[in-house]
Amino acid sequence: MPRKLRIAAAQMGPTQKAEPRATTLGRMVSLLEQAAAQGAQLVVFPELAFTTFFPRWLLSGEELESYYETAMPNPQVQPLFDRARELGIGFYVGYAEKTPEGLHYNSAITVGPDGATLGKYRKVHLPGSVEPREGSRFQQLEKRYFEYGDLGFPAFRGAEAWHRPVMGMLICNDRRWPEAWRVYGLQDVELMVMGYNSAAYDPNGGSTEDAKLRTFHSTMAAQSNAYMNATWAVSVAKAGDEDGSGLIGGSCIVSPDGVVVAQAQTLADEIVCAEIDLDAVRQGKDKMFHFASHRRPEHYRRIVDQVGAQAPA
Amino acid sequence: MPRKLRIAAAQMGPTQKAEPRATTLGRMVSLLEQAAAQGAQLVVFPELAFTTFFPRWLLSGEELESYYETAMPNPQVQPLFDRARELGIGFYVGYAEKTPEGLHYNSAITVGPDGATLGKYRKVHLPGSVEPREGSRFQQLEKRYFEYGDLGFPAFRGAEAWHRPVMGMLICNDRRWPEAWRVYGLQDVELMVMGYNSAAYDPNGGSTEDAKLRTFHSTMAAQSNAYMNATWAVSVAKAGDEDGSGLIGGSCIVSPDGVVVAQAQTLADEIVCAEIDLDAVRQGKDKMFHFASHRRPEHYRRIVDQVGAQAPA
Repeated sequence: MPRKLRIAAAQMGPTQKAEPRATTLGRMVSLLEQAAAQGAQLVVFPELAFTTFFPRWLLSGEELESYYETAMPNPQVQPLFDRARELGIGFYVGYAEKTPEGLHYNSAITVGPDGATLGKYRKVHLPGSVEPREGSRFQQLEKRYFEYGDLGFPAFRGAEAWHRPVMGMLICNDRRWPEAWRVYGLQDVELMVMGYNSAAYDPNGGSTEDAKLRTFHSTMAAQSNAYMNATWAVSVAKAGDEDGSGLIGGSCIVSPDGVVVAQAQTLADEIVCAEIDLDAVRQGKDKMFHFASHRRPEHYRRIVDQVGAQAPA
Repeated sequence: MPRKLRIAAAQMGPTQKAEPRATTLGRMVSLLEQAAAQGAQLVVFPELAFTTFFPRWLLSGEELESYYETAMPNPQVQPLFDRARELGIGFYVGYAEKTPEGLHYNSAITVGPDGATLGKYRKVHLPGSVEPREGSRFQQLEKRYFEYGDLGFPAFRGAEAWHRPVMGMLICNDRRWPEAWRVYGLQDVELMVMGYNSAAYDPNGGSTEDAKLRTFHSTMAAQSNAYMNATWAVSVAKAGDEDGSGLIGGSCIVSPDGVVVAQAQTLADEIVCAEIDLDAVRQGKDKMFHFASHRRPEHYRRIVDQVGAQAPA
């Protein structure tokens, strides 16, 4: 039986700090409905989709805590879960997690068409810093606001209606780290889903990388790692100008050949949809990237034995 | 002091099985001279540059042995070494190696402007098969003709005149394996050099991948892995139709941003030249890909603990 699945990237435009939570959630429900109208069975939302990208500010106390979800779902996100189940559609969504023990993670879950949580992931590659950069208008404080993910890269099976693909989740910066992709590749991943919030330029005035180059990097990371692990990939942005800080768009659906089959054209709320054939992963997995035939782990030790780079004398 | 270096990709057109060795070597000397005339200080030749890509045939005995070099240099390649030293130019070249112990490797060396060998590498990721495929017009018998490389991925320092860049070598199929790049990345590599012979299509009649897609893959592998390891990369083809078996071209020089700064336009002998600024690696190495700040090896264990893929239940 052909293993085909219709999938959507639900790119979100900017979410200003002052935007009420209910407004943002309404946009997400609307995107879900648009995707369902196009026949999508699985919708991928961005990282930290329910709010603005709050790690750009130095926050504390109640204001900071207001950005985290203490359960998933919970009353303030429930309408999204309810509407998805009504429509029989599944989704990936990124959110700020606070555990009962008081630990904080940059997390994502994938929910099946029946509302069951199929997989959970906590971001491993946190960018930014713990301490704020003095004199900067915007910060990148993920290392301050989140613990490093403690779940590794746990592949899981998608829903029956999706032909039970082996799935993996990443979040934003993770997608630039080939180690993360390979750990999923070694679990035979067929469909990678991931959301991101990526600066379109240095919000503090640097000029070495512009939005075009950063979008190229984002797309290339998805393309090449999909190719080298012979997997489909869906990579989804929160895009546009959030309170004066620009985010790239470029949400895309990428084939196991590393070819972009669909890509967002705006920096706003936008659905990008494609039918994917899960069996297209076989060409790569059975030939060029048949790991059992070609990998030589005895020469890869540095990857786990050292953290930083060590130059030869 | 600016760390600038002028570098050339010396793409080679096809080398037919019947072409005399001296003719091929003459073409290489000519490419070296063209590169020198353009100011190049380092020239990168393809994999197995001195002969046709012989693993496409089932060979044995003296005919097979004739493809290997029992020393490097040796009389039949000496003119290339002599001319390079006269011109004060260094080079990377791939060759079939036979050791005094009778072991065979798919190898490469980098030679400095003074003729000294600066680094040596033996291909780790051998594609193809040990046994010939019955009924096939062409074979891919690298696993039959070569041992797996036993040197790992040993970074080394380039010449003084090149500002002593940290260099790494790969050969052909290696460039598609992010583990190989990362092991060099963890040695702070600034300049990756590699040669390849890559089929333009399935020479036995398959139609799932054409030359355009395969060239895209080759270029993307260089671009993305250069970006993710913040290094310059030079990737050089033997191209064109060798005795009825097509090879892709697309030799390229890639920046640490993953941008192709120069690329071959033909499937023939062709020099592609660019001045590279080694300090351009700093943006990536100091920020996005500052490994010591961001890598989490505790979650990468599968990369060394297993060879093949293992799907979840």
